[in-house]
Amino acid sequence: MKFGGTSVAEPEDLKRAAARIVAERERGNKVVAVLSARGETTDDLLTMASEISERPSPREMDMLLSTGERISCALCAMAIWDLGHQAISLTGSQAGIVTDSSHTKARIVDVRAGRIEQALEQDNIVLVAGFQGVSTDSKDVTTLGRGGSDTTAVALAAALDAAVCEIYTDVAGVFSADPRIVSEARKLAVVSFEEMLEMAASGARVLQLRSVEYARNHGVRIHCRSSFEQGTGTLVIAEDETMENPFVTAVTHSADEARVTLSGVRNEPGIAGRIFTALADANVNVDVIIQNEPVSTEHGADLSFTVARDDLATAVAAIRAENGADEVLTDEQIGKVSIIGAGMRSHPGVAAKVFRVLGGEGINIEMISTSPIKISCVIAAERVDDAVRALHRAFDLGADAVFEEDSTGEHEARAHPL
Amino acid sequence: MKFGGTSVAEPEDLKRAAARIVAERERGNKVVAVLSARGETTDDLLTMASEISERPSPREMDMLLSTGERISCALCAMAIWDLGHQAISLTGSQAGIVTDSSHTKARIVDVRAGRIEQALEQDNIVLVAGFQGVSTDSKDVTTLGRGGSDTTAVALAAALDAAVCEIYTDVAGVFSADPRIVSEARKLAVVSFEEMLEMAASGARVLQLRSVEYARNHGVRIHCRSSFEQGTGTLVIAEDETMENPFVTAVTHSADEARVTLSGVRNEPGIAGRIFTALADANVNVDVIIQNEPVSTEHGADLSFTVARDDLATAVAAIRAENGADEVLTDEQIGKVSIIGAGMRSHPGVAAKVFRVLGGEGINIEMISTSPIKISCVIAAERVDDAVRALHRAFDLGADAVFEEDSTGEHEARAHPL
Repeated sequence: MKFGGTSVAEPEDLKRAAARIVAERERGNKVVAVLSARGETTDDLLTMASEISERPSPREMDMLLSTGERISCALCAMAIWDLGHQAISLTGSQAGIVTDSSHTKARIVDVRAGRIEQALEQDNIVLVAGFQGVSTDSKDVTTLGRGGSDTTAVALAAALDAAVCEIYTDVAGVFSADPRIVSEARKLAVVSFEEMLEMAASGARVLQLRSVEYARNHGVRIHCRSSFEQGTGTLVIAEDETMENPFVTAVTHSADEARVTLSGVRNEPGIAGRIFTALADANVNVDVIIQNEPVSTEHGADLSFTVARDDLATAVAAIRAENGADEVLTDEQIGKVSIIGAGMRSHPGVAAKVFRVLGGEGINIEMISTSPIKISCVIAAERVDDAVRALHRAFDLGADAVFEEDSTGEHEARAHPL
Repeated sequence: MKFGGTSVAEPEDLKRAAARIVAERERGNKVVAVLSARGETTDDLLTMASEISERPSPREMDMLLSTGERISCALCAMAIWDLGHQAISLTGSQAGIVTDSSHTKARIVDVRAGRIEQALEQDNIVLVAGFQGVSTDSKDVTTLGRGGSDTTAVALAAALDAAVCEIYTDVAGVFSADPRIVSEARKLAVVSFEEMLEMAASGARVLQLRSVEYARNHGVRIHCRSSFEQGTGTLVIAEDETMENPFVTAVTHSADEARVTLSGVRNEPGIAGRIFTALADANVNVDVIIQNEPVSTEHGADLSFTVARDDLATAVAAIRAENGADEVLTDEQIGKVSIIGAGMRSHPGVAAKVFRVLGGEGINIEMISTSPIKISCVIAAERVDDAVRALHRAFDLGADAVFEEDSTGEHEARAHPL
């Protein structure tokens, strides 16, 4: 069971999480719970660091940030004792999360779950501080980067051969579109790992991309559900487990993008390779790329790509340093809309329908990128909501909407991060 | 070098501490610095625990509270990097502070300083989280109790065979009396371990009693000084190192006491033993004890003792449960004044002079307790300040007052915890 920051923010939230954990234990299951830092804790710690140093040591950032999850776990263990069950909290290091030494963005290289197994044997509920581990070589505290607690939970579920990895968040599951934009969006009962990967990569924020990859590679069933409501959420599982594949499952969108256009890229072999190597070296992830043929041999080609808006300044600086183009133009007024569905592979004509629907709404498609189970279109930022609604309607995604029988409706209005 | 909570509270305090550490390194010394949690951090963490549980698990309290010192150390390491020196922060566990398993009040059983020595060899300044360790048997995080960071510093100084253990606080050193009460109180250049122990036990709060005991047992020289001012503070060293022993060194006082009087204690063998065993079992430290002979065999004896005011309710409950006396009376309006001096051993007549001075001020002495180098008198709380001033004057303790040449006077008005 993994509880995110909003699920343990206030004392009553933390007690609610403890009660859910205890209820699961009382059903006869052994429980390991991974907790994130409470509410704004990580931001507060980042502020402290920024008050001390402009470029804080990564090793020390990890020592600093790892305290947030430890606080959550210690407090949750106290709450569980008060509910009449034994509990112990463990740091990432104590829990056996072994990582490489890439401070602030470490990768898990091994999970040595002996201490957790022993604690479970002794009838304890085990709370594990998410987002952190210990480096193999120097035995230093490391962190896995933002959202790393999902990865901690999935990695432990794999190592312990858990029946399921439940991810508790402030939304009820994975939806066919963002309910803030599409009122008839429905909660999906099941999605495949591949669909979830595409959704996470194209704007859905319910699950962290890395954790879904880890779950797919290790065959960990994820159950994504609300910590504020009862009832089931969305199962994320291997494709052959799902009963049928609707050809389109969901519409996702992202508004945090920016486009870079290089005008007059010199007509030299390897120039694109040099440009994208420079971006990779600067740690900038490039999403959609298009290149136009040069109009003349003198002018050079035009090359456009999209990056996360936060990375725009870094990207432009890296490009300028590489000095491969006459002019570098940027556009922050773009967004991306994507449709995703594992069934798309066997249903030709989906792309054509997407273009037709957007065209019918008068929405200009500026860039296109596809995978076997995804079609993404870069469009003007101001038309993103219209595009999401039109596509959701056109592909009939809200048709057989499923509602929770026992939903209180209390959190219907909650911001939905899909 | 050990820096207390007020010395690292705000960003500028933390940077000042970092600068002092770096200055020491630049003098060519290897430096290990022990840090406390910043300002109100520990109180904030205690509040979080109280919001969750009325009787939190001690193991989890330690997991929770140990985060405060880690935050201080990580931030200080960042500041030291910015000053151009290598630094690494270590948790108590990483620093090799091995303790027993008495959560929230663990005792250090071993210091395995290998990792610190290695880091020093590699030209690092080492920051160690104070107040915490790891238990031998279960490898759990433990804490040493309030003020435990002093003990961490002294224990590391002993293990590393340090030239000196510098304790940086918000006061300039150890004074002949509390300067808030006695304006002519002077800073003592040197006090012996024995004097410091008596002072710590009788109200001085500059150094933690346990840390002074540890320093005496391991021959660690302590230099107690201000983190806000330059200039030397007070050396706490073995007695034969001091040049001469003035027969009285300082006047201390305590206002956090309460008296318990048992009236009509039954005239049975072993009754006093039973009563004080009950108090010890309830973890109540008893200070001064007096017993009056019974006026008649029927009535039974009167027995009085003093305890810390915080322990009064616990003490009374323990006594009532033991049911050994007719009546239990309490008095919270008492205080204690003590004079301390290693030279007292060879100067008879000090006690007589104390009683004469207090008598001359019309101050009634309610209880007396002595050691070879200390005389303590329990008096009415409202007369404590008068008693301190009269004794300080009578024993001429301010006569050869020493002032700092380079003192800025900025912190003259600071609260003095002696």
